[in-house]
Amino acid sequence: MKSSKRKIIYAVGIGPGNLNMITPEAKNIIEKCEIIAGYSNYIKQIMPLISENKEIIQSGMRGEIDRCTQALDKVLEGKSVAVISSGDAGIYAMGGLIAELIEYHQKYSEIEVLSVAGVTASSAAAAVLGAPLMNDFAVLSLSDLLTPRELILKRIAGIASSGLVCCLYNPGSIKRRDLLEYCIGKFREIQGDNIYVGIVWNATKENQATFVCKIKDFPFDKINMNTMVIIGNEFTVYKNGKLFTTRGYCEKYYDKNN
Amino acid sequence: MKSSKRKIIYAVGIGPGNLNMITPEAKNIIEKCEIIAGYSNYIKQIMPLISENKEIIQSGMRGEIDRCTQALDKVLEGKSVAVISSGDAGIYAMGGLIAELIEYHQKYSEIEVLSVAGVTASSAAAAVLGAPLMNDFAVLSLSDLLTPRELILKRIAGIASSGLVCCLYNPGSIKRRDLLEYCIGKFREIQGDNIYVGIVWNATKENQATFVCKIKDFPFDKINMNTMVIIGNEFTVYKNGKLFTTRGYCEKYYDKNN
Repeated sequence: MKSSKRKIIYAVGIGPGNLNMITPEAKNIIEKCEIIAGYSNYIKQIMPLISENKEIIQSGMRGEIDRCTQALDKVLEGKSVAVISSGDAGIYAMGGLIAELIEYHQKYSEIEVLSVAGVTASSAAAAVLGAPLMNDFAVLSLSDLLTPRELILKRIAGIASSGLVCCLYNPGSIKRRDLLEYCIGKFREIQGDNIYVGIVWNATKENQATFVCKIKDFPFDKINMNTMVIIGNEFTVYKNGKLFTTRGYCEKYYDKNN
Repeated sequence: MKSSKRKIIYAVGIGPGNLNMITPEAKNIIEKCEIIAGYSNYIKQIMPLISENKEIIQSGMRGEIDRCTQALDKVLEGKSVAVISSGDAGIYAMGGLIAELIEYHQKYSEIEVLSVAGVTASSAAAAVLGAPLMNDFAVLSLSDLLTPRELILKRIAGIASSGLVCCLYNPGSIKRRDLLEYCIGKFREIQGDNIYVGIVWNATKENQATFVCKIKDFPFDKINMNTMVIIGNEFTVYKNGKLFTTRGYCEKYYDKNN
């Protein structure tokens, strides 16, 4: 049983950035909290949901620890606070950071984080492409800010060897491209040059764009931090403008009977 | 450019089953389509959104090919049709099956499937537990109806060796337990007996329940087809009733400065 005395902080996933993709649950919590905290670009995306009387705690990239500690301090003061994340609050996002901060700082130990799941970036990108995540897949971030490079390299090899479709978060920028080059090289080595890759920029938003190619033609110069890369496997096909991974329904249920 | 002449079928993810977790986009499409097709249990979940004048195509477990071909036939007749899936339409769901059917049957080739992403079961379960998917993870189904067993076994070993947190869909039933036993055994062998496992039944629904334990105490007899199992890794902790995977924020940004 939860103690009713614990103070609550909400970690809310707002989905991929289109207001039509935010859940009623997330919307309700944003509407009822006195304070909304988030990365300034995400605050902008949900501005139509934030009434004028709210206090907003926002900051830029890499300001997340600051924002979350400010938010936790406000909870200690008795305020109701929602910390928003793009996509799902629990996938490379604020839900986990807040849990870490509560564990680390004794003063926050009376606070409980309640997470509201959202449509995550890989689901949104996959839907735009077709259905590349129809069977087993992995989700991997290529950012080495927090995860040691050796672990990322090991995971790339493990995922490629397992034949899992792979969603790459933070694939790289013009500056940081070496892990992406290693990753694409490793998949080519293990899965071959002809598996498909789908790339999505700004899924569900006005400036959404997509690109599909074979992995040997991977367009490194088009990748930025707003890009989701989905590397297919041997079962991933590209037909009629749709990228999808077959599960083998037709093969199993038709071919044998015909 | 999409040809404007193609006929559309919608594959709509309704989220984990609570109406507060369905996106406005999904709701709009369900409201505007003349026909709604889906597994009868999922149709029941969204019944409050379906007005009386709609035609409903529903069937039980394993009736999915039948439902989807009926739905595609209705699109050929000029009807507007939404095929619903629990969670996300593109993850072990109808979005990919419809794409397979369109590719397989020449008569459907003029139909385009448009997918609407939803909050997937692993996101919903993770939010209930805390934030176990805060860093890299894999999503694996233990159903061998469509995927060969050897491939499932290979992926289990690959995921465990890569130190990825792992979400198990279709973990097993009282009858089919051998793949789950193999999987838990392999993770114990590679990751050790003390990694945490989080289990969620019916995430976000009225009868939601959770259980967290070390993998050595895995409760095989409590697993059914409505269960989501999340196997943690060495960075997954269980504190104050929350299961979360640390990304190392506090370690990186506090310890070195203090």
